[in-house]
Amino acid sequence: MPALEKVTIIGSGNWGSAIAKIIGSNTARHSEQFESTVRQWVFEEQVDGQNLTDIINTQHENVKYLKGVALPHNVVAIPDVIKACEGASLVVFVVPHQFIHGICEKMKGHLAPNARAISLIKGLEITSEGTRLFSEEISRILDIPCAALSGANIANEVALEKFCESTIGCQSMEDGLVFKNLFDTPYFRIAVIEDHVGVQLCGALKNVVAVGAGFSDGLGYGSNTKAAIIRLGLMEMRKFGQTFFGDSVKTETFFESCGAADLITTCNGGRNRKVAEAFVLTGKPIAQLETELLNGQKLQGTLTAQEVNEFLVARKMTQEFPLFNTVYRIVYEGVSPEMITVDI
Amino acid sequence: MPALEKVTIIGSGNWGSAIAKIIGSNTARHSEQFESTVRQWVFEEQVDGQNLTDIINTQHENVKYLKGVALPHNVVAIPDVIKACEGASLVVFVVPHQFIHGICEKMKGHLAPNARAISLIKGLEITSEGTRLFSEEISRILDIPCAALSGANIANEVALEKFCESTIGCQSMEDGLVFKNLFDTPYFRIAVIEDHVGVQLCGALKNVVAVGAGFSDGLGYGSNTKAAIIRLGLMEMRKFGQTFFGDSVKTETFFESCGAADLITTCNGGRNRKVAEAFVLTGKPIAQLETELLNGQKLQGTLTAQEVNEFLVARKMTQEFPLFNTVYRIVYEGVSPEMITVDI
Repeated sequence: MPALEKVTIIGSGNWGSAIAKIIGSNTARHSEQFESTVRQWVFEEQVDGQNLTDIINTQHENVKYLKGVALPHNVVAIPDVIKACEGASLVVFVVPHQFIHGICEKMKGHLAPNARAISLIKGLEITSEGTRLFSEEISRILDIPCAALSGANIANEVALEKFCESTIGCQSMEDGLVFKNLFDTPYFRIAVIEDHVGVQLCGALKNVVAVGAGFSDGLGYGSNTKAAIIRLGLMEMRKFGQTFFGDSVKTETFFESCGAADLITTCNGGRNRKVAEAFVLTGKPIAQLETELLNGQKLQGTLTAQEVNEFLVARKMTQEFPLFNTVYRIVYEGVSPEMITVDI
Repeated sequence: MPALEKVTIIGSGNWGSAIAKIIGSNTARHSEQFESTVRQWVFEEQVDGQNLTDIINTQHENVKYLKGVALPHNVVAIPDVIKACEGASLVVFVVPHQFIHGICEKMKGHLAPNARAISLIKGLEITSEGTRLFSEEISRILDIPCAALSGANIANEVALEKFCESTIGCQSMEDGLVFKNLFDTPYFRIAVIEDHVGVQLCGALKNVVAVGAGFSDGLGYGSNTKAAIIRLGLMEMRKFGQTFFGDSVKTETFFESCGAADLITTCNGGRNRKVAEAFVLTGKPIAQLETELLNGQKLQGTLTAQEVNEFLVARKMTQEFPLFNTVYRIVYEGVSPEMITVDI
């Protein structure tokens, strides 16, 4: 009989907590495949004078990032990343991307020999030099394979067990099916595909499209126009993938939850749409709206639009991605928002 | 030099009037290809004691079906269908589908020898015996080729020149490009594909998906769930096409405006979504809601769900289309609306 998989979750924010609920329930349910106990690395914070890890381990609730949702008792919060991952065979990354490097360096040499990882971190790094997928960053530092999960998955809705789907991109179908057992529930339905690049690309580029959709809302353009922007955006996302990553990025990926469904959710709700709408309605610069509407957090979509622009400028290809390019020019070059339906 | 195309529009409702505005403007603009005058067959009605055709021809406005929108002066309303179509080389059908047969019978023998038609009529006939596309019905009676146009095109938004896209499905690319010149404007952007079957199929099946999306809204399920229903619906639409029409129905069609974009618009706004939401919230039967919310008009989505069900039952294939089947069972068999996320 093969050894049971030992699962570690790296991260404990809103999404990390929602996913810990699912993982804890699934390791208990599939006791033939997983050790029931799930270790979760939690960045230690004080909440009302108590350690967050102690609160999670006694009250079984992440009172800071997912209030009101009971976590399974087999999810154990650990503040030390090495203790959290020692001997783990399956590692789930769900931390802000800027922490990946430091955390992975600490984890080196502590995982099981057959360890595999999965990244729930949205997006990828895009610079004028090229692109770097977070799954590949993890894979490179830890020298283990790393899959990716992404979908139309607003954390609070998942935590409340509202039905949705998600997509796992995994180069090994065998590992993909192990991860499927770890994540799949009747209300969180998993599809496994090989295209881990497409899965991550969608998670980044959708935010640029949502900024365009928000402009359309701000301009009062109605439902036809917004649907056209979403559709043109989906086509540009695919073109970007197939132009710069070749055949590994599949057309079918854009029909999966990580593609069309996540794009639809992001363009209907979400902060990128909302701030872009306010940009048109108020005429205020994005930085000011970030302060006023997002407590100073950076908006992902405009940041990605800038990164994509640098990448495309370096390749003299901005004209081939008119929607991405127009979003960039409206935000950063003072072009009129009305151009969103003219230049695309 | 080839003869100029003579254009006739058959129909003058809300959508027919919006499209007459575009066609009139385009025939004048492309004077090398089209005769400027566009004849529009208008079902004669009295409006404040005047003939609707007289009002259109003097005030250049269809005051009954598209109030407040100026029609080009080269669009001429004609109450006699034979006079309207005599010698026409391009015929645009935009009438309720139940009128096709009678009108086409009258038109027989009156068109130009090289006449081609295009159908803007949404949907298709589905019975337990099989399916019949409206374009094929027109083509059969008149013995001329017939293309189809469909997209995320709410008539009033198009009439106000809000940017959107539309898809023409035409088996002859040459004819398709003629129709493109007839319809394409900077705010109404046309893509031409060969798959005229997929174009029409999307226009019918999207309404069934919108009923499912409306159930989700009525149940308060949020954005993830609705995006999942839209996505699963798009996949079932494609499966239906590729199962029953074979290779002629292309995957790319579902990325076009007639596919993903029209589905998104229909699931976000539209009467099918709205009545389905009310069905859950009020518990009233669909027939009663049709009376209360639609002035007694039949809801397209529930009707199509029933037709699709008969078609699938006859082929013992209901289980292979779980979303269509669940929508049907919720509306007609008293199954609980919550099943929309359980049985799909």
